[in-house]
Amino acid sequence: MNTAHARLTLRRLGIEAYKETVVYVRTDSPICTSEGFEARTRVKVTMADRHIIATLNVITSDLLQPGEAGLSEYAWKLLHANVGETISISHILPVTSLGYVRKKIYGKSLKATELNDIVKDITAGYYADVHIAAFLTACAGKRLKQHEIIALTESMIAIGDRIAWPEKLVVDKHCVGGLPGNRTTLIVVPIIAAFGLMIPKTSSRAITSSAGTADTMEVLAPVDLNFAKMQAVVNKEKGCIIWGGSVSLSPADDILIAVERALNLDSSGQLVASILSKKVAAGSNHILIDIPIGSTAKVRDLKEARYLRKILQAVGKKLGVKIRVLFSDGTQPIGNGIGPSLEARDVLKVLENAPSAPKDLRDHSLTLAGMLLEFSPKVRKGCGKKLAAAILKNGQALQKFKDICEAQGGMRTIPKARYTKPYIAKKSGKVIAIDNRYIARVAKLAGAPTSKAAGVDLHVHVGDPVKQAQALFTVHSESEGELEYAFEFLRLGVDVVTIG
Amino acid sequence: MNTAHARLTLRRLGIEAYKETVVYVRTDSPICTSEGFEARTRVKVTMADRHIIATLNVITSDLLQPGEAGLSEYAWKLLHANVGETISISHILPVTSLGYVRKKIYGKSLKATELNDIVKDITAGYYADVHIAAFLTACAGKRLKQHEIIALTESMIAIGDRIAWPEKLVVDKHCVGGLPGNRTTLIVVPIIAAFGLMIPKTSSRAITSSAGTADTMEVLAPVDLNFAKMQAVVNKEKGCIIWGGSVSLSPADDILIAVERALNLDSSGQLVASILSKKVAAGSNHILIDIPIGSTAKVRDLKEARYLRKILQAVGKKLGVKIRVLFSDGTQPIGNGIGPSLEARDVLKVLENAPSAPKDLRDHSLTLAGMLLEFSPKVRKGCGKKLAAAILKNGQALQKFKDICEAQGGMRTIPKARYTKPYIAKKSGKVIAIDNRYIARVAKLAGAPTSKAAGVDLHVHVGDPVKQAQALFTVHSESEGELEYAFEFLRLGVDVVTIG
Repeated sequence: MNTAHARLTLRRLGIEAYKETVVYVRTDSPICTSEGFEARTRVKVTMADRHIIATLNVITSDLLQPGEAGLSEYAWKLLHANVGETISISHILPVTSLGYVRKKIYGKSLKATELNDIVKDITAGYYADVHIAAFLTACAGKRLKQHEIIALTESMIAIGDRIAWPEKLVVDKHCVGGLPGNRTTLIVVPIIAAFGLMIPKTSSRAITSSAGTADTMEVLAPVDLNFAKMQAVVNKEKGCIIWGGSVSLSPADDILIAVERALNLDSSGQLVASILSKKVAAGSNHILIDIPIGSTAKVRDLKEARYLRKILQAVGKKLGVKIRVLFSDGTQPIGNGIGPSLEARDVLKVLENAPSAPKDLRDHSLTLAGMLLEFSPKVRKGCGKKLAAAILKNGQALQKFKDICEAQGGMRTIPKARYTKPYIAKKSGKVIAIDNRYIARVAKLAGAPTSKAAGVDLHVHVGDPVKQAQALFTVHSESEGELEYAFEFLRLGVDVVTIG
Repeated sequence: MNTAHARLTLRRLGIEAYKETVVYVRTDSPICTSEGFEARTRVKVTMADRHIIATLNVITSDLLQPGEAGLSEYAWKLLHANVGETISISHILPVTSLGYVRKKIYGKSLKATELNDIVKDITAGYYADVHIAAFLTACAGKRLKQHEIIALTESMIAIGDRIAWPEKLVVDKHCVGGLPGNRTTLIVVPIIAAFGLMIPKTSSRAITSSAGTADTMEVLAPVDLNFAKMQAVVNKEKGCIIWGGSVSLSPADDILIAVERALNLDSSGQLVASILSKKVAAGSNHILIDIPIGSTAKVRDLKEARYLRKILQAVGKKLGVKIRVLFSDGTQPIGNGIGPSLEARDVLKVLENAPSAPKDLRDHSLTLAGMLLEFSPKVRKGCGKKLAAAILKNGQALQKFKDICEAQGGMRTIPKARYTKPYIAKKSGKVIAIDNRYIARVAKLAGAPTSKAAGVDLHVHVGDPVKQAQALFTVHSESEGELEYAFEFLRLGVDVVTIG
């Protein structure tokens, strides 16, 4: 009897453990007896010619019959499993690259080959979450040296697919996050594409925020496009706005980010590797990075912003891509809406040149578009923004946006929330601060981004005078329960809008 | 409708996720809709007047009926849950002390109050495993300063129970691990207790090793004693050898250690806090620390050992306890047996003065016992070891060991393994190394410590000449399958015993 290769039949338990691979086995399985039952035992699960590494969880009830095993839904997906198929579970040898992680933890710097092995093993699933957390912590702050950031970025590019475009000049933009409502992408991309520059934009969905750019775009058009479909859209319209996860440009980064957000760590090295690996894999060679600076934004001061700019440009140079960096105001949300539908509404108002369009969103989008246009040899330095404004004003941007939506699968109308409730100022005064993180949390509790129409509609900005009992913002929600969730949080007394 | 306090009825799913608290809810539960479904969402689970913090896993199948929820077994135990009881799930505010963890990650040192908050929140379950991993990584190597180690140790003592003994002089010993078969405790405790010194010894079970001292002792007597029973044994016999987990002297450490072992990190600060918090909580005031040094032991060189000694003595001084440190040979296993029963056999041979008793185990035990005896004002410096040898030789130690076993619930006979298989030398030569980690892994794969009789019986030590085809060691196992697991690992070609 060779229990090491005892076969178990798959039963679908339907347990979602997010991006964690878990295999569930009965307590009387040979694998349990021999591994003992330890913290985070990792085992190899083989099905036909595929295998994954998973954490062992043990079932002490009759959830599984003798001879059966279960998988977390993420593991099920990775293995392309089917009910009734058989798997075998075996031991894994110690993962060599964890030794490099320990080396980094103890303060030594890593060679390119070592970082490459780490990235490979993470992508192959050999790391448990605690190992990923340890790696990220060891790289946190400024602990990655420039040569390490370059090696990490190159490893992350190498492990994924990479797109080649027919045009020589391919531009892209990225915002270093933290600002709710900051949906400039949906305005910038059509301006650039209307001008004729190629901009294959992939964006993220929200992980801990109330909406990612992909969530907002999804209100107006499909964003789950595969490689072939994405290429078709860009070749036809010069631009797209799709969800990066559906093309998996940086599979290692997708795994790292899940743990990174849970830790809420700022790591300039990881950040640069994350941004540039995705952009370079997407085939871009001229990249504009927007860094909003503010005490509740991701980058909190000018010193940190300057350090990031230095690293971004050095790594970009090594990778052969041109990087421009813009420092912008990150002290409060941009636009009025926070949450997919409300943000989409703001975006359309700007594109339609509506008088009620949020001025801050319009102006910031034009600044970014102007800088991107100046990557073109046809546009003189200092003339980009004016050109962008003209393309917006004459309706070309709106038309291009509609064309992109159609090419991605058809433009949609914006849904409206069933329930709304205003949040009232407790005193008169002047708005002195709006907390980006708290306002995003309120929108999230109200149901965003899962409920597209849910979110927060801001009625004031920093500097505005307010009167007691005036509505500071309105919470939008699809259910009374979620509305209550948001207000329960507000009643905890956190300073979402500070009146001085 | 207030979904924030919607009540769910508990169903027992019987899922063991080791020391992880997980709550399983249906995908249509209000908590899922409002939290979104993110990486490692942590929520508060309340049942009657108790609550825990748990990770949210989502069930997409009919494992749960509408209105039902499940818990991991660890969460079930912490809540003292019963089938059919109702729980409510609510949001948690950001955990403030995670900010201190980030501060430490960025290289700043922490104040005593900050470390105290971290320890409190970890013990209360507010940290997910990834947060614990980040904290441990931030403290790894020598990143904790002396004042931080003191504060950490004091916080870990404060959060648990602490025993007060009637005697003024209470001694204890601890070995800094990594050596298979090193069961000196079972010989040292009866010698010390027979002399009349109080030694309330608590030991650990194996986590990643093939046997902990508690596992080996359990072969010979019960070790799961609660506080009251432990105190009764010690007051009657002057000593005990019980499992520390059953009295939970350092609940914070129990949680930290589970993740620490998964990361396989060496952190001198954590190590010192872990050891001393348990010893001080157990009421000891004179402590002997044995540090085996060897390339496959926990402490690899003299420099590291000296650093540890310095920290141990400094922290001990601050806590008002006397610390002596012994550096010993950690290059190979001590004794012949590896695994609970085989180790217990070696121990009894030493206590019975059998001619076949392993000399290394006997000698090292007497060295330790001698140093402990010299804590007593009645024992002259330099005379301890001779005195210990006399107590062993005249049978007092054996009698005391039997008395302790009886007091702990009755002495047991050692079980023997059903299956054994020798591992054969591939060539002739001389044993130049035995890998502590690999030999422990073989014993574990054979079923130790879950199968008490399983393990490895070493027939050679470093320096011994061997002939080709001679048995280097014999693997003991309770099932053919586990025997095969061990030999499957051996066939991978790792150097368990190196012949030069």
